Amino acid sequence: MKNLVDLNCDMGESFGTYKMGNDEEILDFVTSANIACGFHAGDPSTMRKTVKLALKKGVGIGAHPGFQDLTGFGRRNLQVTPREAYEIVLYQIGALYGFVKAEGAEMQHVKPHGALFNMAATDAALAEAIAEAVYAINPQLILFGLSGSEIVKAGEKIGLRTANEVFSDRTYQTDGTLTSRKEDNALITDTDAAIQQVVRMVKESVVTSTLGTEVSIQADTVCIHGDGIHALDFARRISETLKISGIDVRKISQFK
Amino acid sequence: MKNLVDLNCDMGESFGTYKMGNDEEILDFVTSANIACGFHAGDPSTMRKTVKLALKKGVGIGAHPGFQDLTGFGRRNLQVTPREAYEIVLYQIGALYGFVKAEGAEMQHVKPHGALFNMAATDAALAEAIAEAVYAINPQLILFGLSGSEIVKAGEKIGLRTANEVFSDRTYQTDGTLTSRKEDNALITDTDAAIQQVVRMVKESVVTSTLGTEVSIQADTVCIHGDGIHALDFARRISETLKISGIDVRKISQFK
Amino acid sequence: MKNLVDLNCDMGESFGTYKMGNDEEILDFVTSANIACGFHAGDPSTMRKTVKLALKKGVGIGAHPGFQDLTGFGRRNLQVTPREAYEIVLYQIGALYGFVKAEGAEMQHVKPHGALFNMAATDAALAEAIAEAVYAINPQLILFGLSGSEIVKAGEKIGLRTANEVFSDRTYQTDGTLTSRKEDNALITDTDAAIQQVVRMVKESVVTSTLGTEVSIQADTVCIHGDGIHALDFARRISETLKISGIDVRKISQFK
Amino acid sequence: MKNLVDLNCDMGESFGTYKMGNDEEILDFVTSANIACGFHAGDPSTMRKTVKLALKKGVGIGAHPGFQDLTGFGRRNLQVTPREAYEIVLYQIGALYGFVKAEGAEMQHVKPHGALFNMAATDAALAEAIAEAVYAINPQLILFGLSGSEIVKAGEKIGLRTANEVFSDRTYQTDGTLTSRKEDNALITDTDAAIQQVVRMVKESVVTSTLGTEVSIQADTVCIHGDGIHALDFARRISETLKISGIDVRKISQFK
Repeated sequence: MKNLVDLNCDMGESFGTYKMGNDEEILDFVTSANIACGFHAGDPSTMRKTVKLALKKGVGIGAHPGFQDLTGFGRRNLQVTPREAYEIVLYQIGALYGFVKAEGAEMQHVKPHGALFNMAATDAALAEAIAEAVYAINPQLILFGLSGSEIVKAGEKIGLRTANEVFSDRTYQTDGTLTSRKEDNALITDTDAAIQQVVRMVKESVVTSTLGTEVSIQADTVCIHGDGIHALDFARRISETLKISGIDVRKISQFK
Repeated sequence: MKNLVDLNCDMGESFGTYKMGNDEEILDFVTSANIACGFHAGDPSTMRKTVKLALKKGVGIGAHPGFQDLTGFGRRNLQVTPREAYEIVLYQIGALYGFVKAEGAEMQHVKPHGALFNMAATDAALAEAIAEAVYAINPQLILFGLSGSEIVKAGEKIGLRTANEVFSDRTYQTDGTLTSRKEDNALITDTDAAIQQVVRMVKESVVTSTLGTEVSIQADTVCIHGDGIHALDFARRISETLKISGIDVRKISQFK
Repeated sequence: MKNLVDLNCDMGESFGTYKMGNDEEILDFVTSANIACGFHAGDPSTMRKTVKLALKKGVGIGAHPGFQDLTGFGRRNLQVTPREAYEIVLYQIGALYGFVKAEGAEMQHVKPHGALFNMAATDAALAEAIAEAVYAINPQLILFGLSGSEIVKAGEKIGLRTANEVFSDRTYQTDGTLTSRKEDNALITDTDAAIQQVVRMVKESVVTSTLGTEVSIQADTVCIHGDGIHALDFARRISETLKISGIDVRKISQFK
Repeated sequence: MKNLVDLNCDMGESFGTYKMGNDEEILDFVTSANIACGFHAGDPSTMRKTVKLALKKGVGIGAHPGFQDLTGFGRRNLQVTPREAYEIVLYQIGALYGFVKAEGAEMQHVKPHGALFNMAATDAALAEAIAEAVYAINPQLILFGLSGSEIVKAGEKIGLRTANEVFSDRTYQTDGTLTSRKEDNALITDTDAAIQQVVRMVKESVVTSTLGTEVSIQADTVCIHGDGIHALDFARRISETLKISGIDVRKISQFK
């Protein structure tokens, strides 16, 4: 039975005078921070502050590259070629690298953002291009992706360490994919149920699908939302419950 | 008597479908390439291509960070704080680092662009912030700046190698500064005169001011313009004349 | 038999220091100019110059709104909602309106650009949103769209005058749609054949499909490419041939 | 004795997923809304919402054009030429015009934002270029500017109606200019004192300088800040106190 998991959260999503998230507080409960790199959110100043904050709290630092669509927060699909995906990912990891290096630290991981994350979960060519970019800049980086998806496969194929990500507040289908947000039963709104799903995914590598079947799933890291009024409370509760359930919450680089 | 000089040129200034410069041809004559990093010009795709091209031709690769002002090509003064300058320079060097690292190569230098270059020549606080950013990401990088200016001083103070840059087509004042472009005699339009000024600056560390006085000047690297119809011809001629005059044209990292 | 047609061309696609197209020369041969509005290309300065130039040459002025994707020149599909399409189209038409009004002139038409043009040809909801934006700002504007496509239908439905656009250098399928660029026979590379196809589409409202069948097609306006070394020559030839063939080349507002 | 004044507030400064200000609530107390146009803040979607909201509350709509510097929120000086200022102002007024026209309404005024506002207060050439842009698109628009500054003069010279703006929370010098924010006594932190200064400026056209002298000042409109936790409370209090003091708070177009 597995008893280790990483908790990751998107961070550094403020932009200029615009503030987003509760980074400083959330960092007390998560172990890996996905830091926006200026394309879908974030700016040089925010990146610098967020890197310093994550280091101070001992949280693993990751690049969170997305589409260059600030208006849409990187959540709208953009028809890029695999070569373009390679280039924008390399650019953004590099940009964050500057701030990490300036603080004398190391980057831990890369997690694509929003529409790029979703597209790379099912598009093998896009997934491979992203994995290549990560490998090209630093083969020690851990690639985060939707558990069992194309990007995790692409990462493993090229020789990267990967982290299978699960969601606490989403339901799953019998094939292990997430229920579409268009469906009524896509979200788990009960906090206890959400946390118990995670505990079970981590300890037993299993999740109950919407049809009631048991589905195998790998849970290396859990995505926590940093925004919204309940984010901080949820982060605290999931962190505590995981520990009470005998699961060590550690940054991914300590067990992958 | 000195017999070594570097020839540098701004490169990678295309953007998306917009083409600028004759990078591939100019690279045959220069020894250091200042590659735009996506703020005032350049994009991830152009950066990748330009890095590969420079490596193929054995030319030293440098980051060319500028203000985030694509409309103004980074040529308009923007009132940034030293901290903001530090952050945008770090971001852009990092972004280019991604492409250099992906090709298994090393970055050689950093040269601020346009208005940032000009402001850092006289603003000591801005100059120090830029020098700190360069040092923070890699203390081996060579910092390019206007010969004898604040940024060269800031670089030396922090322990960076620096390159004093001179211009072939500009006239100089008795205090070693460039004649303002607002003056009628700011530009040297005769190609032979321009090249001879460079030869003398390199060999004798001296330039004749507009008042006819001899002024001490350090010439580690000469800025060549890559754009315009005569750029390629000028690059070829200055490269040839320097060699004929007994001056070795080498990338800055080979003699600094 | 019809003997009237409009020739339109994308214009004002320069950006900052980046130059694109031969606007001034091409304007001698076309009757309607689609002026980029700063999202996929163009900037306030270019817009102003292009509006003045079009007025000087007596060419009809149209807004050419696209996705906010300067890097991709608005050619990459972006998953926008109909509401977002309405808003970006309204914004861009308004922006161009400023320059047209400042010159004491009137705007003639609107033609969506690139990926937005293509998506609106088949997506009825997107097409309706665009038509609503055009109608909302000025119901006298003429909406340009791919001949027979959803956007033309949406324009007619809401009460706008529309212009069915045909392409000289593309082949057609039996259902009147363009042959996909992925197919080998998508393009007509012979200039004379391209021009003869246009003449026939205008005069007989018919085009021969790749399968050799006769297909009905409405040709109110022909799209001329303004970029590339042969653009100017092609514009001149198609303009001359149309006139020789007894077809009046007039701006769309004079016959719609 | 004058008994009329307008209260204006910057609005529509949200961007994409980033929220700023309390527009809906503040609109109950102000009479003119300066709506961001997408350069320093705002986006097409926010512009549309804000225009609809202002109309619903009967508040005068104004364009609030700024520098294209989203990262710096348009607050950093950018060295533009008068021609560039003309062009960016025309573009942005036009863009907002689209949304106003789509709702069947009229635009009331234009107020430059941030650094552009400040630069135009003292730079006559810049001020004239802005006034020309406003006049060119619609000579009925009212131009807002710092009371007695260059932009107000430029507006009057060209034949525009102008609104002299005063600040409730800033102290004044003997020459009628604002005390620099670098000085300790630049701000009035006591709310009652701030409001009383406004009442006096409106009724008596006089303000007491930091040296204790009486200075003539014209107060057509008062700038209210919409951001921050006390913004709404301050808006309510100044609105109430003005009315109690016998001053009618009306939108500027009703008395200029």
